Amino acid sequence: MRIILVGCGIVGQSFARILIRRETELVKDYGFHPRVVAVVDKGGAAINPRGLTLEKTLSLKDEKRTVASSREYGHPAMSALDVIESVEAEAMVEATPTNIVDGEPGLSYIKTAFKTGKHVVTTNKGPLALAMPALVELADYNKVYLRFSGTVGAGTPVLELAKKCLLGDRIVSIRGILNGTTNYILTEMDEKHFTFQQALKNAQKLGYCETDPSMDVDGVDAACKLVIMANWIMNKKVTLKDVDVQGIRNVTPQALEEAAKKTCTIKLIGSINSDLRVKPIEISRHDPLSVGGVLNAVTFVSEFAGEETIIGRGAGGIETASTILRDLLDIKQNLATKLIA
Amino acid sequence: MRIILVGCGIVGQSFARILIRRETELVKDYGFHPRVVAVVDKGGAAINPRGLTLEKTLSLKDEKRTVASSREYGHPAMSALDVIESVEAEAMVEATPTNIVDGEPGLSYIKTAFKTGKHVVTTNKGPLALAMPALVELADYNKVYLRFSGTVGAGTPVLELAKKCLLGDRIVSIRGILNGTTNYILTEMDEKHFTFQQALKNAQKLGYCETDPSMDVDGVDAACKLVIMANWIMNKKVTLKDVDVQGIRNVTPQALEEAAKKTCTIKLIGSINSDLRVKPIEISRHDPLSVGGVLNAVTFVSEFAGEETIIGRGAGGIETASTILRDLLDIKQNLATKLIA
Repeated sequence: MRIILVGCGIVGQSFARILIRRETELVKDYGFHPRVVAVVDKGGAAINPRGLTLEKTLSLKDEKRTVASSREYGHPAMSALDVIESVEAEAMVEATPTNIVDGEPGLSYIKTAFKTGKHVVTTNKGPLALAMPALVELADYNKVYLRFSGTVGAGTPVLELAKKCLLGDRIVSIRGILNGTTNYILTEMDEKHFTFQQALKNAQKLGYCETDPSMDVDGVDAACKLVIMANWIMNKKVTLKDVDVQGIRNVTPQALEEAAKKTCTIKLIGSINSDLRVKPIEISRHDPLSVGGVLNAVTFVSEFAGEETIIGRGAGGIETASTILRDLLDIKQNLATKLIA
Repeated sequence: MRIILVGCGIVGQSFARILIRRETELVKDYGFHPRVVAVVDKGGAAINPRGLTLEKTLSLKDEKRTVASSREYGHPAMSALDVIESVEAEAMVEATPTNIVDGEPGLSYIKTAFKTGKHVVTTNKGPLALAMPALVELADYNKVYLRFSGTVGAGTPVLELAKKCLLGDRIVSIRGILNGTTNYILTEMDEKHFTFQQALKNAQKLGYCETDPSMDVDGVDAACKLVIMANWIMNKKVTLKDVDVQGIRNVTPQALEEAAKKTCTIKLIGSINSDLRVKPIEISRHDPLSVGGVLNAVTFVSEFAGEETIIGRGAGGIETASTILRDLLDIKQNLATKLIA
């Protein structure tokens, strides 16, 4: 499988490292021969139709800041769109930063990949949160696959659990803690009786959130993930504007103390029932969702199998990168069954 | 797919009910046309090569205690082995009670099904705990599939999470609470300061364990599940005798109180590292495994994706029955990819 990698930050580089480390096993266990024919970063592209040597590409990136600095394969003047349009490949891996205003540049990259017949694996929530129903339709129309396991739960296989492990069953509702930063803040407020502002400052010091913490603390990041789950798992045609979102800025230490008296705590819960909501609510400390620190946790309620909860870290470069490989292998398996006739 | 159902207790009957309820969706969503051509219970068999009417078979079972009472299709003199050998079918569903002394009668049913070219779905831990490496080999040799998702975690997709959701990754260790009854007892001892005997009595009153509680409280049930995970997920060729097992009879309220002082609790943990162990150990109350009541919980530690924990009820007729359908659909999908060349 020939792959174009667009975005070469922590996730993109970790993905390349995983491919290097797993080269032998991927052939042996899955019959999978990935060949990265192009890598694009902000400085341009490196292109080799026979497959780039990933070790060399990574050292160049490290030393010269851009893969386009390669003397043999570098194309400093080429944009990502040029590469996606002109380089032959079966799949594009898109690992650019999330933008929830207009989804760019990821949105255009994905659409262009579809139009040129490429499967897409992305770790970027923005395009999906804003336009998932349209993107799914466009992928179907072009008879290619779109996968995005890393957008929810990072390395924790939340989407895959729902999609692959409950065949024949039906998920009737979902609720979960979908953002590690806010969970860290609420845990600190609960355990150490900090105010929101104090706990936020600590989270920022530890690098758990951006300088502008709004994506996390106002519930937007959780809402993006909820949109992805609603479309993918429950077949709802929704986007970010359909989610009723409330963040955690107004949660007080007093409210947490009141909750504690009832053996409860307050968590920022995203839920999918007849509607989509993200809001801080009281849950029992005995609820499997009641996890602390930066953990994420999602409970699926299914018709036959009952309630299943999956818990894991919702962040991390290598964790997220591992989902790209998972998704590529999933696409390979799906192609083998020729589900697209 | 023509199916022989052997064992028509709560799980077998629930499976039939699920097939009835999902008939339309199974065709529409999966192209799956299950046809139950034979049902066997202790009173004999009901056989119809064109497919039994499941509603009628269930009412007969309900009214007359055996499906063999059918005037048209009943065969009171036929044994399960006769049926497996003589009735044409693609798959056998085996839902007889667990026996960990010699694995019978399930073990013979499974071997006979393999030898006559039938895929097997079982919810019965006994044959697997005692002979899993040999059974897996026999299935391979006969080019048929063996599936058993309901043997670990009942409806909770523990095995499937490990096997289907972490493609390209590698699980390096596993630890978990694999028995709901002992978890209930330890939770009661922890929260209400009961002795083991008091908590056991309550569990028996609530129907959570057998009159002979040994399978649960001596850790044997958990050890069986550990064997299945070790073979299936980590490719270890082990059986029940390879597990170092210690039950919970000697756990005291004092030990639990000591643990509580360190924000810990005691759980019966099955673990797979270089060796296989089931024993009561102290874990932090902040560990995602620290779940109460009858819940089961399993943590997978993987090389790239980190730690994932799955939590759910580890028991239930309908929950367990839902795994039979999942496994049959998995076999159908695998057949489509022709992984068996």
